[in-house]
Amino acid sequence: MKKKIIIAIDAMGGENAPNKNIEGVSIFLKKNLKDDFELHLYGDENIINKELVKHNIVSNSVKIFHTNEAVADDETPLTAIKNSKNTSMWNSVNAQLTNNADITLSAGNTGVLLVISRMILKMINDVSRPALAGLWPSQKGMSVVLDLGANIECEEKNLIDFAEMGSALFKSIFPDQKPHVALLNIGSEEIKGTEILKKAHSKLKELSNENNFIFNGYIEGNKLMEGNSNVIITDGFTGNVALKTAEGTAKFLIDNLKKSLSENILSKISLLFSYFSLKKFKLKLDARKYNGAIFLGLNGPVVKSHGGTDALGFYYSIDLCYKIIKGNLMTQIKNNLKHLNVKN
Amino acid sequence: MKKKIIIAIDAMGGENAPNKNIEGVSIFLKKNLKDDFELHLYGDENIINKELVKHNIVSNSVKIFHTNEAVADDETPLTAIKNSKNTSMWNSVNAQLTNNADITLSAGNTGVLLVISRMILKMINDVSRPALAGLWPSQKGMSVVLDLGANIECEEKNLIDFAEMGSALFKSIFPDQKPHVALLNIGSEEIKGTEILKKAHSKLKELSNENNFIFNGYIEGNKLMEGNSNVIITDGFTGNVALKTAEGTAKFLIDNLKKSLSENILSKISLLFSYFSLKKFKLKLDARKYNGAIFLGLNGPVVKSHGGTDALGFYYSIDLCYKIIKGNLMTQIKNNLKHLNVKN
Repeated sequence: MKKKIIIAIDAMGGENAPNKNIEGVSIFLKKNLKDDFELHLYGDENIINKELVKHNIVSNSVKIFHTNEAVADDETPLTAIKNSKNTSMWNSVNAQLTNNADITLSAGNTGVLLVISRMILKMINDVSRPALAGLWPSQKGMSVVLDLGANIECEEKNLIDFAEMGSALFKSIFPDQKPHVALLNIGSEEIKGTEILKKAHSKLKELSNENNFIFNGYIEGNKLMEGNSNVIITDGFTGNVALKTAEGTAKFLIDNLKKSLSENILSKISLLFSYFSLKKFKLKLDARKYNGAIFLGLNGPVVKSHGGTDALGFYYSIDLCYKIIKGNLMTQIKNNLKHLNVKN
Repeated sequence: MKKKIIIAIDAMGGENAPNKNIEGVSIFLKKNLKDDFELHLYGDENIINKELVKHNIVSNSVKIFHTNEAVADDETPLTAIKNSKNTSMWNSVNAQLTNNADITLSAGNTGVLLVISRMILKMINDVSRPALAGLWPSQKGMSVVLDLGANIECEEKNLIDFAEMGSALFKSIFPDQKPHVALLNIGSEEIKGTEILKKAHSKLKELSNENNFIFNGYIEGNKLMEGNSNVIITDGFTGNVALKTAEGTAKFLIDNLKKSLSENILSKISLLFSYFSLKKFKLKLDARKYNGAIFLGLNGPVVKSHGGTDALGFYYSIDLCYKIIKGNLMTQIKNNLKHLNVKN
């Protein structure tokens, strides 16, 4: 019998926890009718049980693992290391060592989650820094972008690790597509950019092949969403600024569009006719679909859900965990890094 | 009699030059009926004259300065220095030394324009690097963002120069508003970011005052367009990526919106009712309104119009030149830098 996919969920992390976490679980159970997974919920047994009853969840695929405490949102990584051993977050990560969990999901404090995960799971040999990868919509589907803020300064070695791990992540989530890697820069010519980018560029060109990833060269910010490259590599400072700038731009445009379309009686009538089209437009670009940043570089995958997301957003990050394990992320990463070592 | 504002225009630079340049001039003359300016057109006299006739331009405010050559789009800065003395670009910049021009506008080759400008106009004392500043829409109007790509790596001294010059630029374009400076970073807490950012942060905090600029601290990418800060300071690598990512995001959203609103008969009907509202929305966010990057740090202002813009975009950059000189940019910069020197 094939081993079931076990997802360890920090039920107490994030705003409105555990309500939105358990509602997210209930959406997942309705949408995924297979029996090849178990959801292990870490947190206060009484509270979780009440939420399960509220959402009519009766399922053999859900198990509760009681913990007394939860990591506070204002806790710093330093104090958390000492104080967190009884928390739902610590135990949901530790579940990968003690309770056969394949992956951990939390919507709690990001800094603490990163430090705890690194401490418990340890770095993969030959990878010096963990990265935070995210999903990004494009004209052709979705792209993986990393680093999104774990490393504000990077050497070329880090960027190459990110390319190897990012393309492994892409292959695990989208098994039918090939990863096309590009390096974020301010021009597309080979002579552009910092010395670190130029060195990473020439190394990635060497590593580019059908089995590993295809290297497309440099990419500029305005081409990110065209989708010709689907694994975007950058340092954590630039990646974080780019991601947040895209979010801010989208919000600015949508706010202005809403204002324009409700300013007079004619435009309000137009809203009646365009209702379903605009709803589809909104759905396609719903930020909750891209919820879930993946910590890469540790000996086990950890997914961070946005703290402020709702039940649907939390559902999407449970689904992301499921896909990542189904697609054998850790094996893909090890294969890609093996390839890297041969070349070195 | 007060001296007229003299704008030296490279009539031969950019795609579709001189057609779009001269059409831009004609729009400017129709919209600006004052007689406090002169437009000096540098380029081939015969060709320019034909364009002036085509656009029915008969005006004492327009003068032609004949040049034989134009800088090619594929010219590199290195070869251009030797070959460009007879070009419209060189002479329109040199006009600030020889023909009383206050400012230069070109839509030609950016790299060549930057090198020629620096060579002819020289750096302002105490400013070590020139910066490229641009305009960015916000919920409260417009912001100034710099550097957009002239310096891919910056020290804290450069960032402080950018803040001083950027707030001077803001004051010259928007004389009724106060400059509120913010430093682009990946978090808003003081402990976040690189060492260079932390040093620049503490120096800008010291310099913040009502006469100079108000320092708002760090800003994250998602807040750029809220408009609470209107002078955004960053290194050229990050600024370039942020600007282009915002452009790409806007294009992605608008393309998807168009597709959604033309997908069926109902949504097509809705377009009839929302026609004027959507047109206003489009106008408000028209990229041509933000056309024109300003080189700061030289002993004279140079504006680079986007090479691919049309006549309306070129008009907006002529108007930007006019506003900058009317608002006494160079005096504002000198005042701001004087203040900086006192503090040093």
